[in-house]
Amino acid sequence: MKKFLNTPETLLVDALRGLAAAHPELRVDVDRRIITRADGPRRGKVGLVSGGGSGHEPLHGGFVGPGMLDAACPGEIFTSPVPDQILAATRAVSGGAGVVYIVKNYTGDVMNFQMATELATDERIATETVLVNDDVAVKDSTWTAGRRGTGATVFVEKIAGARAERGASLREVAELARRVNAASRSFAVALTACTTPAAGKPGFDLPDDEIEVGVGIHGEPGRSREKVRSAKQIVAGALDAILSDRPLTPADQPIVMVNGLGATPLIELYVLFGEVAAVLSGHGVRVARALVGNYITSLDMAGASITVCGADDELIALWDAPVRTPGLRWGV
Amino acid sequence: MKKFLNTPETLLVDALRGLAAAHPELRVDVDRRIITRADGPRRGKVGLVSGGGSGHEPLHGGFVGPGMLDAACPGEIFTSPVPDQILAATRAVSGGAGVVYIVKNYTGDVMNFQMATELATDERIATETVLVNDDVAVKDSTWTAGRRGTGATVFVEKIAGARAERGASLREVAELARRVNAASRSFAVALTACTTPAAGKPGFDLPDDEIEVGVGIHGEPGRSREKVRSAKQIVAGALDAILSDRPLTPADQPIVMVNGLGATPLIELYVLFGEVAAVLSGHGVRVARALVGNYITSLDMAGASITVCGADDELIALWDAPVRTPGLRWGV
Repeated sequence: MKKFLNTPETLLVDALRGLAAAHPELRVDVDRRIITRADGPRRGKVGLVSGGGSGHEPLHGGFVGPGMLDAACPGEIFTSPVPDQILAATRAVSGGAGVVYIVKNYTGDVMNFQMATELATDERIATETVLVNDDVAVKDSTWTAGRRGTGATVFVEKIAGARAERGASLREVAELARRVNAASRSFAVALTACTTPAAGKPGFDLPDDEIEVGVGIHGEPGRSREKVRSAKQIVAGALDAILSDRPLTPADQPIVMVNGLGATPLIELYVLFGEVAAVLSGHGVRVARALVGNYITSLDMAGASITVCGADDELIALWDAPVRTPGLRWGV
Repeated sequence: MKKFLNTPETLLVDALRGLAAAHPELRVDVDRRIITRADGPRRGKVGLVSGGGSGHEPLHGGFVGPGMLDAACPGEIFTSPVPDQILAATRAVSGGAGVVYIVKNYTGDVMNFQMATELATDERIATETVLVNDDVAVKDSTWTAGRRGTGATVFVEKIAGARAERGASLREVAELARRVNAASRSFAVALTACTTPAAGKPGFDLPDDEIEVGVGIHGEPGRSREKVRSAKQIVAGALDAILSDRPLTPADQPIVMVNGLGATPLIELYVLFGEVAAVLSGHGVRVARALVGNYITSLDMAGASITVCGADDELIALWDAPVRTPGLRWGV
């Protein structure tokens, strides 16, 4: 295993120190592992908190800032944050209007955010939990009952964040976030496994001429192992899975993300995006907004995911609203 | 070799199609391989053109847009663009105030931009060439006489682009660009080699327990092969090379980039950035602006580069100026 790190044990803390040094506009509590906006909490604003295992950067810490999250709670690599940590983040962003938890559907995350909800309720902080479960590849998975939560998390955090920024009630923000999740579907393909620093070796074996189709963001198995195929064929398969589950019509204004899983060059992501746009065009659907790059990764996995959100005027306007975070930034 | 592509021969064209589909604010001439701003040329504005081999994305096509480049000319993978292509880009951005060529110091690039200069002169388009040669690792290299041009290209394109946007003469923009280059130094380390699609196998052999110190962005050899070491030790060596060549004082306001070479997870880049900030702090130097991510890559190479620009108030103000490109965006 070759990685840029000091020790596997200090990887998260060392990375948080780097995040703090690079982004003075964030407040990074390295000891408690909480990343918040330096200008928070904002009185009367609904707070948005997300979190999950580390190893998916820029998600979630890289999406903290005006127009997106108020706080992120990173766990250890591929490990859920703990309830006390989530509670501390909740307190840190509570401005009296309640707090929305955005939770990717993994059993550990769901359980720990549920426990944090109970702790917050004891402190009279109202919360709403929004579960993201957009990955159409498999029904249940290694660490999941039901669909896994993956790329749609980026859309939910951005769009709900914009709505909260403009002023909306706890219920309104949560319902909008659920609507974004319901309109979104994802599918991922791995060319290689990822290596966690603790394990020191790839999480699964994949022959030199095979790909894992429908892989999860921790390397969970997908639908099938298949022989290497062209970008066009890979995209056709992924979009078939996505669109058969949630069809698009020419009236939709899809937001489309082609996301690298960590070790995939940008030039390859653009090849994939070109194929996605071509397939959608064949369905009479035009991409309304595009995001191509590394947004929700899986350490050093070579692979890519495609996420499609069937958006409308309201969601597009919120997508376009100003955002200022390390991972997504425009309009400011 | 596993990559997301259709055929090695169509990689560049397929990627350009994807770039065009994702970024309607750009004009992508797939046949002639020229990327320009959709709103260009701007009368009276100095045009900025860069280019070089593909495989370094987002550089250069991802840096076309308001506040940065007016055009980029991508060659084939790791291959210079040709003079006619550069001339066509020059014509496309010429607004009557002249055109600055930003050229990374590689023999092929230098030669082809020189030939384009002669062609442009024949058409009475005034040009100035700015050579970027910031890599302190080696004096001469596989494809270079003198120092290689690497990460500082991002700084030169951003800062000169801001100056041109505000209105400045051809000579002023070129001189500023040269000043940025002169104030910048880079150093890169590879954990793995990259694989070009045409070759289908890694460009060099690197044992599982060794790193290439001072590597070039095409996998050119560096200063030495060394045993795997900690992030702290790697940063110490890189900054020693950088700062012994161009010392910083507490009066400097350095812009610091920790750049992934293509297959390095963001969490590792933040570990490196934390170490860079700590070393500089030990010298009494505070990072003024930070950039952490993939900006000038080497296909699927696992590795990272550090670039430091000893900036001042003027350069910082231009760095902060609005930019709207696929790869760098803020203020708009």
